[in-house]
Amino acid sequence: MPDAPANDAPYRLINDVVFGEHAVVYSFTNLYGCHIGARSRIGTFVEIQRGATIGADCKIQSHTFICDGVSIGDGVFVGHGVMFINDKRPRATAEGGALQTEDDWELLPTRIEDGASLGSGAVILGGVTVGAGAIVGAGAVVTRDVPAGGTVAGVPARIIRSSAP
Amino acid sequence: MPDAPANDAPYRLINDVVFGEHAVVYSFTNLYGCHIGARSRIGTFVEIQRGATIGADCKIQSHTFICDGVSIGDGVFVGHGVMFINDKRPRATAEGGALQTEDDWELLPTRIEDGASLGSGAVILGGVTVGAGAIVGAGAVVTRDVPAGGTVAGVPARIIRSSAP
Amino acid sequence: MPDAPANDAPYRLINDVVFGEHAVVYSFTNLYGCHIGARSRIGTFVEIQRGATIGADCKIQSHTFICDGVSIGDGVFVGHGVMFINDKRPRATAEGGALQTEDDWELLPTRIEDGASLGSGAVILGGVTVGAGAIVGAGAVVTRDVPAGGTVAGVPARIIRSSAP
Repeated sequence: MPDAPANDAPYRLINDVVFGEHAVVYSFTNLYGCHIGARSRIGTFVEIQRGATIGADCKIQSHTFICDGVSIGDGVFVGHGVMFINDKRPRATAEGGALQTEDDWELLPTRIEDGASLGSGAVILGGVTVGAGAIVGAGAVVTRDVPAGGTVAGVPARIIRSSAP
Repeated sequence: MPDAPANDAPYRLINDVVFGEHAVVYSFTNLYGCHIGARSRIGTFVEIQRGATIGADCKIQSHTFICDGVSIGDGVFVGHGVMFINDKRPRATAEGGALQTEDDWELLPTRIEDGASLGSGAVILGGVTVGAGAIVGAGAVVTRDVPAGGTVAGVPARIIRSSAP
Repeated sequence: MPDAPANDAPYRLINDVVFGEHAVVYSFTNLYGCHIGARSRIGTFVEIQRGATIGADCKIQSHTFICDGVSIGDGVFVGHGVMFINDKRPRATAEGGALQTEDDWELLPTRIEDGASLGSGAVILGGVTVGAGAIVGAGAVVTRDVPAGGTVAGVPARIIRSSAP
């Protein structure tokens, strides 16, 4: 596996990332400790944290944040400005008032299965699974699992079609 | 027409952009193949793609993404974190499983008419027209046309006032 | 008070900022004319404008925009992609058609009290107060005050729990 993307671009921070063949990373990006699959494309203004995994043939569009605990399959479309969450009740400080550390919260794993599509501006709460081929509408806030092939939309997201068109 | 903005700022990527007089572009921006009208201001963390057109006297605020097919009139306010879309059913891969190319989807043109105002966090679906002087509320997801002078809000956006106050 | 963050990181624009001890600022950030309290952490792709104040022990996550008039207490969590607003009716141009200047609008001050938590993708309208320890759900659009200890969610945000769990 190469340890750099296939393209060149200014203003990228890439540390300890494993890339598949022909992966492409655009400018103004901050990637560390993650896996990016073959031929996947990472847009501008994207951060992908340590512990996240992106499959092959994905498009991760601009302004998106992908955190630890997120596992994305193959052929997934993640729109612009999509925010993932991995914490049930985020707080700045722990009980005693000091800043939270990694010991003060439980990581909620999130799974986006092959061929799913997450619309721009969607927010994906921690702990959910978006099934294979499912579609999340633009601006939806996903608070529970989305079945394979289903379409959800709204805040909170509700099923508007149970199988892909 | 100048081929550079009127100001200087670090960390800008500007390629093949036509600027009107006195246009201003802030730092951490990625602009390519677009038109930026006279005196318009482009905020930080903004990407504007090839094929987009911004009129004169506009404010495009930080964290906003403007895609191909978007045409913005004069005196338009685009808030922070506004996401445009130009594709009806975005997917990472085409039928055969290979990454989509430009031939695999239909561009939906979007028009924002003179003097309109798009609130921060709004998402504008492809193919809609926001009429002159209309107001889109913060966080709204616009899925259909907004009449001139009207105000819309919500997910999906609905009319809450039919003429400007 | 130090005039620089405690850490080093590339691609930061920091002008006229007052920092408390041990404040940390990540890369791809644009901070000017603001106060950042002790031990607070500012994520990537964040802009904080002149006139904003951040208390001690806060976490300001990636892709967030904090404007003039926003005052954030101690121990506050601000999620990813949170957008603040300080203007009731944003327009690009003033009555006469020229670009708005600072004289053409009224600043609406916003206050986030100690220990509050703002979920990722939330939009906070100008002029509201989020009370101490309150929780704003991910993707919520906050249009009115949130009482101390309360939890709100949705677009527009409504109370779903009146005291913290």
